[in-house]
Amino acid sequence: MPKKGILERLNANEVVIGDGGFVFALEKRGYVKAGPWTPEAAVTHPEAVRQLHREFLRAGSNVMQAFTFYASDDKLENRGQTLKITGAQVNEAACDLAREVANEGDALMAGGVCQTPSYLSCKSETEVKAIFKKQLDVFIKKNVDFLIAEYFEHVEEAEWAVQVLKMSGKPVAASMCIGPQGDMHGVPPGECAVRLVKAGAQIVGVNCHFDPLTCVEAVKMMKAAVEKAGLKAHYMVQPLAYHTPDCNCQGFIDLPEFPFALEPRILTRWDMHKYAREAYNAGIRFIGGCCGFEPYHIRAVAEELAPERGFLPQASDKHGLWGAALEMHTKPWVRARARRDYWENIHPASGRPKCPSLSSPEGWGVTKGHTELLQHREATTAQEMQHVLERQKKAKSAA
Amino acid sequence: MPKKGILERLNANEVVIGDGGFVFALEKRGYVKAGPWTPEAAVTHPEAVRQLHREFLRAGSNVMQAFTFYASDDKLENRGQTLKITGAQVNEAACDLAREVANEGDALMAGGVCQTPSYLSCKSETEVKAIFKKQLDVFIKKNVDFLIAEYFEHVEEAEWAVQVLKMSGKPVAASMCIGPQGDMHGVPPGECAVRLVKAGAQIVGVNCHFDPLTCVEAVKMMKAAVEKAGLKAHYMVQPLAYHTPDCNCQGFIDLPEFPFALEPRILTRWDMHKYAREAYNAGIRFIGGCCGFEPYHIRAVAEELAPERGFLPQASDKHGLWGAALEMHTKPWVRARARRDYWENIHPASGRPKCPSLSSPEGWGVTKGHTELLQHREATTAQEMQHVLERQKKAKSAA
Amino acid sequence: MPKKGILERLNANEVVIGDGGFVFALEKRGYVKAGPWTPEAAVTHPEAVRQLHREFLRAGSNVMQAFTFYASDDKLENRGQTLKITGAQVNEAACDLAREVANEGDALMAGGVCQTPSYLSCKSETEVKAIFKKQLDVFIKKNVDFLIAEYFEHVEEAEWAVQVLKMSGKPVAASMCIGPQGDMHGVPPGECAVRLVKAGAQIVGVNCHFDPLTCVEAVKMMKAAVEKAGLKAHYMVQPLAYHTPDCNCQGFIDLPEFPFALEPRILTRWDMHKYAREAYNAGIRFIGGCCGFEPYHIRAVAEELAPERGFLPQASDKHGLWGAALEMHTKPWVRARARRDYWENIHPASGRPKCPSLSSPEGWGVTKGHTELLQHREATTAQEMQHVLERQKKAKSAA
Amino acid sequence: MPKKGILERLNANEVVIGDGGFVFALEKRGYVKAGPWTPEAAVTHPEAVRQLHREFLRAGSNVMQAFTFYASDDKLENRGQTLKITGAQVNEAACDLAREVANEGDALMAGGVCQTPSYLSCKSETEVKAIFKKQLDVFIKKNVDFLIAEYFEHVEEAEWAVQVLKMSGKPVAASMCIGPQGDMHGVPPGECAVRLVKAGAQIVGVNCHFDPLTCVEAVKMMKAAVEKAGLKAHYMVQPLAYHTPDCNCQGFIDLPEFPFALEPRILTRWDMHKYAREAYNAGIRFIGGCCGFEPYHIRAVAEELAPERGFLPQASDKHGLWGAALEMHTKPWVRARARRDYWENIHPASGRPKCPSLSSPEGWGVTKGHTELLQHREATTAQEMQHVLERQKKAKSAA
Repeated sequence: MPKKGILERLNANEVVIGDGGFVFALEKRGYVKAGPWTPEAAVTHPEAVRQLHREFLRAGSNVMQAFTFYASDDKLENRGQTLKITGAQVNEAACDLAREVANEGDALMAGGVCQTPSYLSCKSETEVKAIFKKQLDVFIKKNVDFLIAEYFEHVEEAEWAVQVLKMSGKPVAASMCIGPQGDMHGVPPGECAVRLVKAGAQIVGVNCHFDPLTCVEAVKMMKAAVEKAGLKAHYMVQPLAYHTPDCNCQGFIDLPEFPFALEPRILTRWDMHKYAREAYNAGIRFIGGCCGFEPYHIRAVAEELAPERGFLPQASDKHGLWGAALEMHTKPWVRARARRDYWENIHPASGRPKCPSLSSPEGWGVTKGHTELLQHREATTAQEMQHVLERQKKAKSAA
Repeated sequence: MPKKGILERLNANEVVIGDGGFVFALEKRGYVKAGPWTPEAAVTHPEAVRQLHREFLRAGSNVMQAFTFYASDDKLENRGQTLKITGAQVNEAACDLAREVANEGDALMAGGVCQTPSYLSCKSETEVKAIFKKQLDVFIKKNVDFLIAEYFEHVEEAEWAVQVLKMSGKPVAASMCIGPQGDMHGVPPGECAVRLVKAGAQIVGVNCHFDPLTCVEAVKMMKAAVEKAGLKAHYMVQPLAYHTPDCNCQGFIDLPEFPFALEPRILTRWDMHKYAREAYNAGIRFIGGCCGFEPYHIRAVAEELAPERGFLPQASDKHGLWGAALEMHTKPWVRARARRDYWENIHPASGRPKCPSLSSPEGWGVTKGHTELLQHREATTAQEMQHVLERQKKAKSAA
Repeated sequence: MPKKGILERLNANEVVIGDGGFVFALEKRGYVKAGPWTPEAAVTHPEAVRQLHREFLRAGSNVMQAFTFYASDDKLENRGQTLKITGAQVNEAACDLAREVANEGDALMAGGVCQTPSYLSCKSETEVKAIFKKQLDVFIKKNVDFLIAEYFEHVEEAEWAVQVLKMSGKPVAASMCIGPQGDMHGVPPGECAVRLVKAGAQIVGVNCHFDPLTCVEAVKMMKAAVEKAGLKAHYMVQPLAYHTPDCNCQGFIDLPEFPFALEPRILTRWDMHKYAREAYNAGIRFIGGCCGFEPYHIRAVAEELAPERGFLPQASDKHGLWGAALEMHTKPWVRARARRDYWENIHPASGRPKCPSLSSPEGWGVTKGHTELLQHREATTAQEMQHVLERQKKAKSAA
Repeated sequence: MPKKGILERLNANEVVIGDGGFVFALEKRGYVKAGPWTPEAAVTHPEAVRQLHREFLRAGSNVMQAFTFYASDDKLENRGQTLKITGAQVNEAACDLAREVANEGDALMAGGVCQTPSYLSCKSETEVKAIFKKQLDVFIKKNVDFLIAEYFEHVEEAEWAVQVLKMSGKPVAASMCIGPQGDMHGVPPGECAVRLVKAGAQIVGVNCHFDPLTCVEAVKMMKAAVEKAGLKAHYMVQPLAYHTPDCNCQGFIDLPEFPFALEPRILTRWDMHKYAREAYNAGIRFIGGCCGFEPYHIRAVAEELAPERGFLPQASDKHGLWGAALEMHTKPWVRARARRDYWENIHPASGRPKCPSLSSPEGWGVTKGHTELLQHREATTAQEMQHVLERQKKAKSAA
């Protein structure tokens, strides 16, 4: 019996659980380099990528997203990739691994594209779309179950990606890395969503950059706008597993702790229960994770939504609901923690007496050279904006 | 060419890097159940255990410790193990996995025993030693490179373990899960160490229960006492990867966050640099980790000690020293973080405004029923103590 | 030469600096009882009240507000006042003290009324107004320079107070103890301000209940609405000297630390500089303080606005601007703190490792019996609301 | 009937309650300048000094300590005192004010000397003693009830002070501003105490520089050493009202928040209850306060020790024990806080999300120019030490 497709599931109001963050998890395991963040491990260390897929599958994930993040040729080149591995090789290997594990359970396999250096460096719409097309060719060849355009900071580029992916005839999900403040041009989440649905996406939402509750907030705004526009869509959310109440519009990239000192912000499994419930209540049905999500985080999502889904994930064999397995602990006072209200209400201490609760994005007032950094940043952002405006002008005069 | 043995390395004043914590890492990956904490995954999911060994090897570990924690028959039974898997099967499978990966690099393979329910429930010395012997039989059959008696709260039981392991003729390391306050009877770390060395251990130290700097402190006390007693030994330390300034003598088990809300306490890689240097400066040469240590934590230890060892670990291919690879990041203000003094001085925020820096062991004044818990705890501890005293009395009258 | 009146000053765009919080300051000095919060010390310990007036005068205050808070007869009675002191006696003594000190410098003397138990217990408009009239009689007899209706949670009662005070022909200021969320019926700050201006207040604003920046925010909303309505007014703000980012609409009363554990929230003098500048930039010209403000807080306001006012307050003889007097400290490293950027950027530590940054109003999840408390609270609020509705109904049917 | 003297009280095992910190309290009221910290207000603003005495008397204090801190001629001169006021004038006025208020209740009047710039700048024993003698002459003329040598960082100078004060025949108390680490030469508290008792002090202890529990710890060490030496003494403690868990041996002076951002560290009245009990249990009977202590802090000490003393202080008329007067508060949920266990267990939030629990003395790694500061500091300390050594050498060669 063939598996139900992504739209069949969502149309039936089923919960689809996404996977977690490959780049961050594999960085900690020693297979991805923070900085370039590229996925060549799909070729060089397939066993590590396969194992992580398998853990998410066991944790309850219904989507094996091929490990193709930043796997466009322009990005690989831009990031100083010195191995003689092409984007196509990475994309193919990643698809094979995702398919192999998807076949081990009730999961679909998805191929994904994300924002490109070409867009930011003022390449034309045609050039940018060619980048996406190249990845899409692999996804079609590997017969992915559906496609995801994700991690876009500029809605225009996301639209272009959706338009390319739509050519395949496969279902398309579009997910931006924005919060309630909107994209880098200040386009609000609602307007982004409407444009993406009009571009052809059947599923819209956000991923990365912000913590779960912030992301759910942004998707709520998307849903309200899509409905107000009389359109129809499904909704997805794949947030960070880090608490980020102190982010500005650029998300956790701006936090001074990014990317090597985020540990104190990691969500507990109990935080994930709250997230899953909140997302579900908001009408979101494709619920997954991004950077920071480890398999146990996804399992917590699956456990919270077990009543709705009707079953527990496989990995719950190794987990008592709400700490129930602590009943088996040696110490009686640990056994006494085997109950929901204990974990639901805990406010864990940081164990770090010299650390504040919040930091200021970019270490305001903490790091030396802050002013220069800010000036640099403004200049860079201005430059990016300038590029975009020029391209738009060229495009218009060409039309 | 055969590998150098553990004592050869330590006698040559080489740094031996241990591995990290299997139980906690595999719990998050979905293969170990918190509460029973038993290692049957060595039999049921060898690919997951093998992968974790491999990650630690890549991170720089010279010791592949077979995943035999709590794998004594009495423990497996006591913890409600319902699979038809015997302790011997677990121990054998674990040894095979550790050996397989050890062969892939410059690592030794070790077998380990730890504290038993038999000791606490007042079994005789003969009975407790029989438990250890049963595990040792497997380790001899599998020809481990050396033996570790670890995670002991009572020095008497640790001595018994050492005495059994010594029968093999292989090098024996002995590691207690105690802090500067000493074992559960109040025997100070120094006295514990002297007794263990006298029992035949060539390497002594501490593991688990406390954060790195606290553990280093305890090992310093051991070293001072061993030297004062005119004895010789090597020293090891394998601490938690959690900040635990607020623990009492029972260690992190007593923290209200144990085991499911410890996230904000996780050490960063930069904390690990400090730990590795501190341990090295204290004269400790077997430096590893326990619960909470992920591969990137071990890599940080190996990177800090690269000048002394003369080489970087394999996984440093995927890591710039002190964040150097951030030079490749897209955003200029993230690139500006590619420097040692940035990360060395950062005080990461918790992102949790309602959480304190320290908690009180056992949630003093926070959880309901605290008084009853405490009473229960005192009763249990008293009972344990009673058992021990009775056994000692019996032993004496028998003699 | 007679002093300029309050309106003359504000019409000339001068900064008028208010005083600080008498009730809280005198509680710490031992003359006011927290709970009843009544001002009988004006009669029983005039030297203490006079001294505090004098300290505020020296600190730069232009307004000696007679210590008549909660000095209405119904309140004194309601609070279990057992001394044979009438409201009139308190009001008279308080006016005399304020006048005496006002005469020592460039300060005006004001009389004030605030919310009454009569309003909350469903007395009629006539009855409530009679309470205010009784206090006003004293203020007229004592020839106050202007009148303040302050600390009102319900805009209707504040309007009644303004209407009574207007009968005197003296300038009237009206100040509510609300934040940006509005009054207890949810009437937004803007609407409250418009109604108060229409009732006859020449100065409107907020006092107490929230921290400085929150109060400034609320007054900005008032100003915008008054201007939008085509009306004219002056603006005042007299906030708490406590950081209250975690308050709900009832303000600091709901914080679990109220009123006896607010210490860690006390603003530094440097926080006051920010407040004064923020208030000034918002177009507010009557800038003072309420609970928690000590003389040095008011001095900081006066020092920040010294460029605008053209002079420093008298008490600055005993204070170097931005810590300049530390140049005289014995220790060289303390002398190195004698500079603006040091104090402007400091994030002071709490010295309290077991305490969080934020608490939850009413100790959610912390205190036992929380549920009962909440139920009690809701019942009480419902009862109050019921009273108000009944009164309004009666008033209508009477009309 | 004449009052009982200080030794009579202590010999009878009575509790003697000290007063609080004049310098810090009057700085906030606008009468003392932080930096010079000199007490000329005794002459220029007697009403402010008198009022503060009176508040401490009402709060339960049995000791009116004349406001003569830093009132030696060398200090006044050194601190840039430009008024034409001599040390003698300040000391006389301060004595008169203290005596006036002492006469209003059951309080003794004490005169005090403290460390001198002369000692640090290498003046001879004779010269330093002449400074103390000059102040003592006033105290004898004004017939103080007893004498206090306090705030000494160097035990040698404290001994000299005691030797001078003893000439008067009046009881002498000696109090150093040190913690458990000892004086600036590393002389432990116990040894300091023994030397001071041998020099003639009948009461020894510590004041200032550290928080209450740290100070009590230091006095315990003093008591143990004095008793071990077979000597007899009474004990006193007058700590800060700031939490200082993060101080080094120089005390709160080194904290980056000193002296203008200490607010979040201020002890609550409930912290004072713990302090008073702890001090009492340690056998200390002269229990007071220093910098940061406001009248309500002293009242809390008096309330905690009311069972031992047999009465409440006068200011408790304005305070319900353990918050009892909140029964009169308007809001029912505040009334619910009128109970001991609520306040005894509260962990107040800081309201400051960007602030840590602990800071590092001297802002390690936070302030620019830190390295230079440290170098400066070391140089300065070395210089001071050099002076001391030179003097000792000179003294020896003279002998």
